[in-house]
Amino acid sequence: MQPSIDINCDFGESFGVYRLGEDERILDYVTSANIACGFHAGDPSSMRRTVAACLAKGVAVGAHPGLRDLEGFGRRTIAINADEAYELVLYQLGALGAFVRSAGAQLRHVKPHGALYHMAETAPGIAEAIVKAAAAYDPALCVYAMANGRLAACAQSAGMHTVHEAFADRAYASASQLAPRTAPGAVIAEASQAAEQALCIAVRRTVRTVDGRVEPLKADTICIHSDSPHASTIAQRVYEVLMDEGVRMKPFWSN
Amino acid sequence: MQPSIDINCDFGESFGVYRLGEDERILDYVTSANIACGFHAGDPSSMRRTVAACLAKGVAVGAHPGLRDLEGFGRRTIAINADEAYELVLYQLGALGAFVRSAGAQLRHVKPHGALYHMAETAPGIAEAIVKAAAAYDPALCVYAMANGRLAACAQSAGMHTVHEAFADRAYASASQLAPRTAPGAVIAEASQAAEQALCIAVRRTVRTVDGRVEPLKADTICIHSDSPHASTIAQRVYEVLMDEGVRMKPFWSN
Amino acid sequence: MQPSIDINCDFGESFGVYRLGEDERILDYVTSANIACGFHAGDPSSMRRTVAACLAKGVAVGAHPGLRDLEGFGRRTIAINADEAYELVLYQLGALGAFVRSAGAQLRHVKPHGALYHMAETAPGIAEAIVKAAAAYDPALCVYAMANGRLAACAQSAGMHTVHEAFADRAYASASQLAPRTAPGAVIAEASQAAEQALCIAVRRTVRTVDGRVEPLKADTICIHSDSPHASTIAQRVYEVLMDEGVRMKPFWSN
Amino acid sequence: MQPSIDINCDFGESFGVYRLGEDERILDYVTSANIACGFHAGDPSSMRRTVAACLAKGVAVGAHPGLRDLEGFGRRTIAINADEAYELVLYQLGALGAFVRSAGAQLRHVKPHGALYHMAETAPGIAEAIVKAAAAYDPALCVYAMANGRLAACAQSAGMHTVHEAFADRAYASASQLAPRTAPGAVIAEASQAAEQALCIAVRRTVRTVDGRVEPLKADTICIHSDSPHASTIAQRVYEVLMDEGVRMKPFWSN
Repeated sequence: MQPSIDINCDFGESFGVYRLGEDERILDYVTSANIACGFHAGDPSSMRRTVAACLAKGVAVGAHPGLRDLEGFGRRTIAINADEAYELVLYQLGALGAFVRSAGAQLRHVKPHGALYHMAETAPGIAEAIVKAAAAYDPALCVYAMANGRLAACAQSAGMHTVHEAFADRAYASASQLAPRTAPGAVIAEASQAAEQALCIAVRRTVRTVDGRVEPLKADTICIHSDSPHASTIAQRVYEVLMDEGVRMKPFWSN
Repeated sequence: MQPSIDINCDFGESFGVYRLGEDERILDYVTSANIACGFHAGDPSSMRRTVAACLAKGVAVGAHPGLRDLEGFGRRTIAINADEAYELVLYQLGALGAFVRSAGAQLRHVKPHGALYHMAETAPGIAEAIVKAAAAYDPALCVYAMANGRLAACAQSAGMHTVHEAFADRAYASASQLAPRTAPGAVIAEASQAAEQALCIAVRRTVRTVDGRVEPLKADTICIHSDSPHASTIAQRVYEVLMDEGVRMKPFWSN
Repeated sequence: MQPSIDINCDFGESFGVYRLGEDERILDYVTSANIACGFHAGDPSSMRRTVAACLAKGVAVGAHPGLRDLEGFGRRTIAINADEAYELVLYQLGALGAFVRSAGAQLRHVKPHGALYHMAETAPGIAEAIVKAAAAYDPALCVYAMANGRLAACAQSAGMHTVHEAFADRAYASASQLAPRTAPGAVIAEASQAAEQALCIAVRRTVRTVDGRVEPLKADTICIHSDSPHASTIAQRVYEVLMDEGVRMKPFWSN
Repeated sequence: MQPSIDINCDFGESFGVYRLGEDERILDYVTSANIACGFHAGDPSSMRRTVAACLAKGVAVGAHPGLRDLEGFGRRTIAINADEAYELVLYQLGALGAFVRSAGAQLRHVKPHGALYHMAETAPGIAEAIVKAAAAYDPALCVYAMANGRLAACAQSAGMHTVHEAFADRAYASASQLAPRTAPGAVIAEASQAAEQALCIAVRRTVRTVDGRVEPLKADTICIHSDSPHASTIAQRVYEVLMDEGVRMKPFWSN
């Protein structure tokens, strides 16, 4: 049987006159887009534009809600409580969903951004709040989450479609933990190395850790970071290698 | 046949620790609520709270989108173009709609706030953009607009439910124009005078202008300004007088 | 010799149409004002207005810089680094200082707000950054800090005027630690109890802890929280009791 | 006698992770920098960084205050009143001034940005408010303004150093009016054409209008727009041509 995988990437992270990312170039090589919703990045105009661009290329549209911290791009932990997390995720889901619906399409997934993604794994109540917001918005929504992490467990036990995520361009300390960003080699900048890791994850369902062990890792989607210096090169290479090896790439929701 | 009218008022205009308005007291005396959506006022938390409070009292929930200008409370004209108007209205509709939907209810109407309300009457393309956003979000949405104004005409010709609005607490220069805020007596602070004007509008379908003429004015809803100093007193008095005179008060959408 | 003390309170925490606090009533009972600078609260208009009000009453003007989090009123920890802390404090000092200078007066002190005040005591590098910003702005600035805490130590070793702060309206676990806000009785709402604690601090230079011990506490200034429900009553009572007992109240900088 | 002129350009218009402009490359070719102060662009970090970069190259530092509209980059007119204009300019002057002062230097000038620059020429009270804020901050500040315009007249009559500004990269309808941006050829993208216009202004003190007339134009500074697609090429070419023709380039304040 032909292996298949979803490839996701962040999009729509511009704001006003500020442009970020190579959205147009990367869109050809992914199957799911996480679109910024105006809190850590994005504005109503980028959301409309990005939704249209994704749909034109057949890329599944998801929401990428973040903390309200444009200055810090949503990467700085803010000590919000569970109610605040629920409310800001629901708000952003609704805002993006309006653009998707008005384009005649459907919001397929949600993936928290930056510090919110990490807080879901570590801060009490945040994962639950995110899942609750997703379910409140649409019980059919897919929840993208660190493979085998707390958010994934939480989404699963709430009966939501849960999408376990692995990374092509980040080194692993173990199958359940990334190497810290500051560690040497933690960020994989070399496209063919990222592609090899993606292939390993998609086909062999394993990952090689920084200290050389091969560990099992069952992932449903592979993330390409849009803010890597060579993001489009990495995305293209991952796409081509998976293609060559007969991996079928398609959005998770269509499974 | 018993005359009927809708009474609308702005709600949810708090932000963070800042509180504004007497939401709880006024909710008993209105039938439709225009809820701030986070641009000129409101935040995800106030939106959740206010939607719940409205639904608990059977008040119809509508969106009250404004310009992105918290510092100016959305009252300062900003030279946005039609695309920007479309996008900011659609964004806010979606955001509020998510809270309404997650509460098991339905967003019933949209009424632009402050400078956006006025720009719809005067700036080219803005009325069209607001109507287009409303229709894109939900063709069943009711558009609240200055009675017989440009936004109303625009909504009507787009086939949207159009709700002509009159004011209980503002003096009229003519049936199609309010007296400018700066004119003496332009703001009606006396509750019984506001109630009398409301009654006139609801039953006799006329309004007495500042220079004493009585002009016909067909309105579907009467607005009570929530930021008047005695807003709750005015709302209560209007409610009681209409009640006494046998006017049936109900949300426009239920017609 | 007549004992003397400074009384400080937060002011200018309005934003746009939103009003907060009883600035006018409390100003009669304090000697130093910590004015919000536009990040956690305050805007250019409130800053101008509040500086003028303080100077009219002879109250010393200080800056009250906070995290950029209007929605959370600067009370939610944000994981900023030391550079960011330095920069946001210096920015806010400059902004407020311009209003003070243009009013012909001088900025006397700086006291970090909310989460920034707490982070100065706990997060690495933050106290140093605040002191560095204060010194960069004006080496004559007084640094207000939790009595005997980390920020105070840091200011002292940098050679800055250091103002040890105690609280009239918060219960103490020990002389170096407040009882957590959530503990019963942590917030002192009763004016005469707050006044008694202020007197104890100002004259006997001790504080009674929640478990009844009397510990020495040398403070140069006493804080009245402006956001207590009865802030103005507490401020007035503290003022009157200190007055009656012959304590001289004056801004710290004038010592 | 050797002709001399000042060359100014906008800098520091990044925000958070967003980068804008080619600050480092252009700094070699200008004598005065207008630095964004956090309202239309810029943040405390970009301000610190940009002030340091300017001082390292001997470029005079000025403030570039704008409307509070990051989303619209300060280019959309906002109907603020004169008090609000005064307050937002003074706030931004103070904020930037703190970084300049802490770097051991002095803030030399102020030039309003975008819509605020235009409102100074057209909206009642705005020019006066800007000049009043500049004078309140520092009477020695130079006010950069459209040559022979309303802001210039206002600064002059207030006794401030007034710096008449011309443009190298914009076509002129007449010596007192730019061709509207939408007119063909209004934006001069060709570096040698911009350099020729700059030379004309600096040496012959005239400008050739779009319909071929040569009109006298006395300017003290020439603006290079940092947001032109080829801004650094234009800046370099203007610099080289002026250099070749023996024009001395130096900041206005040093005259």
